Amino acid sequence: MALDLFNASVQHGLDVAGISVFAISGALLGVRKNFDVFGMAVLAEVTALGGGIFRDLVIGAIPPVAFTDLGYLLTPLVVTVLVFFLHPEVERINKAVNFCDAAGLGLFCVVGTTKAHEYGLGLTASVVLGMATAAGGGVLRDILAGDVPQLLRWDRDLYAIPALVGASATALLIKFGQLNGATAAGAAALAFVLRLAAMNYGWRAPRAWQRRSTAVEAE
Amino acid sequence: MALDLFNASVQHGLDVAGISVFAISGALLGVRKNFDVFGMAVLAEVTALGGGIFRDLVIGAIPPVAFTDLGYLLTPLVVTVLVFFLHPEVERINKAVNFCDAAGLGLFCVVGTTKAHEYGLGLTASVVLGMATAAGGGVLRDILAGDVPQLLRWDRDLYAIPALVGASATALLIKFGQLNGATAAGAAALAFVLRLAAMNYGWRAPRAWQRRSTAVEAE
Amino acid sequence: MALDLFNASVQHGLDVAGISVFAISGALLGVRKNFDVFGMAVLAEVTALGGGIFRDLVIGAIPPVAFTDLGYLLTPLVVTVLVFFLHPEVERINKAVNFCDAAGLGLFCVVGTTKAHEYGLGLTASVVLGMATAAGGGVLRDILAGDVPQLLRWDRDLYAIPALVGASATALLIKFGQLNGATAAGAAALAFVLRLAAMNYGWRAPRAWQRRSTAVEAE
Repeated sequence: MALDLFNASVQHGLDVAGISVFAISGALLGVRKNFDVFGMAVLAEVTALGGGIFRDLVIGAIPPVAFTDLGYLLTPLVVTVLVFFLHPEVERINKAVNFCDAAGLGLFCVVGTTKAHEYGLGLTASVVLGMATAAGGGVLRDILAGDVPQLLRWDRDLYAIPALVGASATALLIKFGQLNGATAAGAAALAFVLRLAAMNYGWRAPRAWQRRSTAVEAE
Repeated sequence: MALDLFNASVQHGLDVAGISVFAISGALLGVRKNFDVFGMAVLAEVTALGGGIFRDLVIGAIPPVAFTDLGYLLTPLVVTVLVFFLHPEVERINKAVNFCDAAGLGLFCVVGTTKAHEYGLGLTASVVLGMATAAGGGVLRDILAGDVPQLLRWDRDLYAIPALVGASATALLIKFGQLNGATAAGAAALAFVLRLAAMNYGWRAPRAWQRRSTAVEAE
Repeated sequence: MALDLFNASVQHGLDVAGISVFAISGALLGVRKNFDVFGMAVLAEVTALGGGIFRDLVIGAIPPVAFTDLGYLLTPLVVTVLVFFLHPEVERINKAVNFCDAAGLGLFCVVGTTKAHEYGLGLTASVVLGMATAAGGGVLRDILAGDVPQLLRWDRDLYAIPALVGASATALLIKFGQLNGATAAGAAALAFVLRLAAMNYGWRAPRAWQRRSTAVEAE
């Protein structure tokens, strides 16, 4: 089917792009954490491929594409070498990590939702797996690096909402038969821009009701 | 078969009950850790579904039931909303988390053992997977929240033993063909009561021999 | 086929040996971390079986061999009991943990690479899974114990390189049809000796370029 062919090529392109930017985010965190070059490579691989491997295990795409497509395995290694020599000055690392993370977030929530639906999962479960594809690698990255995942923290800008919006937009496009290269790119861009805006304007999600009031009083 | 039908309905009911109480435990820890509402939701989902997803991946129940039954995915979200507005006063959180955890522990060790055996695993492996179903979500919850898992800590009351007893009781019921709604509830209640007693009376497991002596001397 | 029969028996022997030494490493860390006996058992099981379970989930060997072979499940429990009573004096723990870890590293990178290839993965992916089999359990052990994985840290001696060399040697042996008991043992010994040498001589991997220079200046 045309749709399948289309999906295969678009998905592969988006995957490699997402893998690259996530790998940058992982390798840069490795620099910031003072890990050695292998620690950087592991963080790059895990950040780039972790969410997708989880998705593939859940939907039964065995072995996960990360282990059948050499490009997927090798891209984070190339990125690690580049980051090893060219990583930005320390004060610019934080910003670069977050920017790459936002781009990967946008790409992966679209790819993940699409692939989960292709393997027969319902739209709601596909949205969840799209979010897991997008955010899973980053969560594993933070856990490996010894940080509490940014995804959970109150004092971090919105992360889950952009992924949710991108994945939900993709699910709606699937539902109404409008998913193609342009609309998929649009959904990814929507999540990306939302995440950038959240970082720029410091958008945050509320904490639990009682807690929030207390915190406000305390300040 | 009658047994299958029975198991299907009983298992679904126990699953949803267990998911609810585990989700409460996860969402409350999110409150205590000062996470935002999405952090609470992630912790609720992971605590409630993490152990079962691991079990399903291992036994080959693909996709895991958490992704095929909408109720499983949505229950932790409903719980998160409730906890968001109604979470107990801070000083009562610890007790509530532990109580819910004990109830989930009892339910999930029975459900997990039963399901693993239905998928063809041996009784010993089924007991291990029953314990993993019961304790896995809590371990993931603690790791995500940046804590050393309560399961491992010496200064926490018995956690593994109640799960082991509940799972083993279930395995024995299976072996002697006595597993039904009442006996399954009994096995779950046994684990639940054991865990409550362990918390109430401060039952703890020993540390390594040499270490224990030294610690006693040190005190 | 003779090769299959050979592989089955050699693989089982290597697996049990690797499981034992990894379990020692996990249980000893449990002692050092002051966990109770169940915490020790969980760390022993996870260290011994975690890498192999991940490998089996990825290659589709469902249920993972850890859940179908009782010996695999029970070995870490026996080890835990032994370590409970006989664990070395505190000052010798560090060395023993690392020595056992090195032996397990050597055995598991060979076993993991071989098994992944038998399940149809390419040689590069098999090398990655060999490394994951060897290092995965240790990474999970460190995360559960609340440490940043040794694998990633700059101030720890080479860990990934020995596993990479052992797995790559195994892949080359497979490629040229020379894999048998003696050559497999050789590949495992190569990784083991490399790891011991790395610990003995303090071999370390470089950190990122810029960072390293700064660090040298700072010292």
